[in-house]
Amino acid sequence: MANKIEIGHGSGGLMTQELIQELFMKYFDNQWLKAEGDSAIVDSTHQKIAFTTDSYVINPLFFPGGDLGKLAVCGTVNDLAVTGARPSYLTAGFIIEEGLSLETLENIVKSMKAEADKAGVHIVAGDTKVVEKGQADRLFINTSGMGFVDELHKNLANGKLITEGDRVWVNGTLGDHEAAIMNAREAYFENSRLESDCASLNGLIRELLDRCNTIRFIRDITRGGLAGILHEVAGMSSLGFEINEDKIPISEGVQAFCESLGYEPLHMACEGKCIVIADESEAERVASIMKNHEFGKNAAQIGQITKEHPGDVVLDTMIGGRRLLEPPRAAKVPRIC
Amino acid sequence: MANKIEIGHGSGGLMTQELIQELFMKYFDNQWLKAEGDSAIVDSTHQKIAFTTDSYVINPLFFPGGDLGKLAVCGTVNDLAVTGARPSYLTAGFIIEEGLSLETLENIVKSMKAEADKAGVHIVAGDTKVVEKGQADRLFINTSGMGFVDELHKNLANGKLITEGDRVWVNGTLGDHEAAIMNAREAYFENSRLESDCASLNGLIRELLDRCNTIRFIRDITRGGLAGILHEVAGMSSLGFEINEDKIPISEGVQAFCESLGYEPLHMACEGKCIVIADESEAERVASIMKNHEFGKNAAQIGQITKEHPGDVVLDTMIGGRRLLEPPRAAKVPRIC
Repeated sequence: MANKIEIGHGSGGLMTQELIQELFMKYFDNQWLKAEGDSAIVDSTHQKIAFTTDSYVINPLFFPGGDLGKLAVCGTVNDLAVTGARPSYLTAGFIIEEGLSLETLENIVKSMKAEADKAGVHIVAGDTKVVEKGQADRLFINTSGMGFVDELHKNLANGKLITEGDRVWVNGTLGDHEAAIMNAREAYFENSRLESDCASLNGLIRELLDRCNTIRFIRDITRGGLAGILHEVAGMSSLGFEINEDKIPISEGVQAFCESLGYEPLHMACEGKCIVIADESEAERVASIMKNHEFGKNAAQIGQITKEHPGDVVLDTMIGGRRLLEPPRAAKVPRIC
Repeated sequence: MANKIEIGHGSGGLMTQELIQELFMKYFDNQWLKAEGDSAIVDSTHQKIAFTTDSYVINPLFFPGGDLGKLAVCGTVNDLAVTGARPSYLTAGFIIEEGLSLETLENIVKSMKAEADKAGVHIVAGDTKVVEKGQADRLFINTSGMGFVDELHKNLANGKLITEGDRVWVNGTLGDHEAAIMNAREAYFENSRLESDCASLNGLIRELLDRCNTIRFIRDITRGGLAGILHEVAGMSSLGFEINEDKIPISEGVQAFCESLGYEPLHMACEGKCIVIADESEAERVASIMKNHEFGKNAAQIGQITKEHPGDVVLDTMIGGRRLLEPPRAAKVPRIC
């Protein structure tokens, strides 16, 4: 096989077969892909199925803390997990620019496989397209995902369970992903330790759902940052948020990055963080589950739900004031995921 | 809302919300998208679920017989239907080049919705990414699909049911899609009637499965053309094909196109054609179901399954000779789907 992707690799002919057999099957090999049907036939044992999709166009392809392949798995796994599903099956669609090195593609495929194994999901169907040089930027990946939802958690995703007085947590520091990507792209700080938090949160979320009785809502904090997510949830639930600015965990590196470049960390995307909303009565349990988990060491309770100002997010600032936290209008930089 | 796609439309902030509400929801509006969860929760009533993905990068975006949006629905619906599934739910992931006109996007979204309605499927989750001008060619769409498979048809997709003596049909003329795309792109023939056959075949396939007892295999004929598909199936089943060249339906337009430009119509992609393999005893029934269907008027029995030369496809030519039909190695042109 050639060492660069050529137009023929996306043709559906022998070269495509070679690519599938020699690269994708090398890592993804399983009974579903082996069946080589146009669709993967998967078993269902539950009535509710979660089904989601996300395309990943991040630039650069490799960054501190992850790469396009890892992100494409984590992102979709998280989208399933936050709806109360047990993420089970993924599909992967590759749009590849002619001329991409096979080594790059292989490294990304390998990384997808490693993360899929870690998250316990199977990649059960795939697709490869190649476009002419200059018609796409190296590689875009779509992953769609399917997972099964217990009857108990079928209303987790719609926000209707959220109640006045509920507490709000995040599982760690905010803004790490976007700051790391911007820094990787522009090299603002040469020796920074900025690193993406890119991670599959289904394990942590499963523990919360299994061990707590009052989890009302979970949502991963991605594009739009904490501010974007809180506004979305405030809108869905017709309730408001009271957030304590000094409780929000932000790493020193991200703080310094944002201060020197004028970014708002609460508008910045994470890829391994979620908000969790639960009844006050379970506050200790929620905090303890998070803090004992690999991806929740810096978890913090950051505020609560209020009826006072429905639809709004009020920030109690560190200097003792109160201000409305505005939602982001548009990200400053494209292609952070 | 602006009349061109800007970077902010992919940001996850308010501009993305506007785009979703004012464009996508205008057409796709349904209970699942309205729930605005990260995953769509869909009901399952069957044990086997088909789950597939395909990215569509066709150029041009609009062509005689269809457009990117219609194709993105048909293609994935067909991938589900040929595995014996009842296509039920689709996801749609959009990768959009900054600067694409909203009108173009709207026309494509509209077309997706129309085709989804025609095929009886729901688009239950979506994703939008925008990349910088020059980093993608206008618009790429990924559709992933899910469908439920009756116990009876769970082995349709794996090729293991195919038996010596089975008959092979196609539901109409071959090569229409690829010839139409090439002609639309290069304008080889100004007043040609070349038109893509782009269509959702789930209705026709459902009739065949419901009314026949011996359907052994179905596969849509896409990239790689009839030759590619037959070789793939010959490989899967360890049986051979005997194909009568003079039985293969090819339109006069495609014939003329291929002769003057030196293309092999049996290597050319369709988007509304499939091969059907069934027992000889049901030959009349299969033919009659096809010919009475909107998408099977030019259906033809083109050959049969043999043990004589496993893995090979032998063509009985019009001039009385026999030759091996070679699989395509690579398509001549990229981005036909």
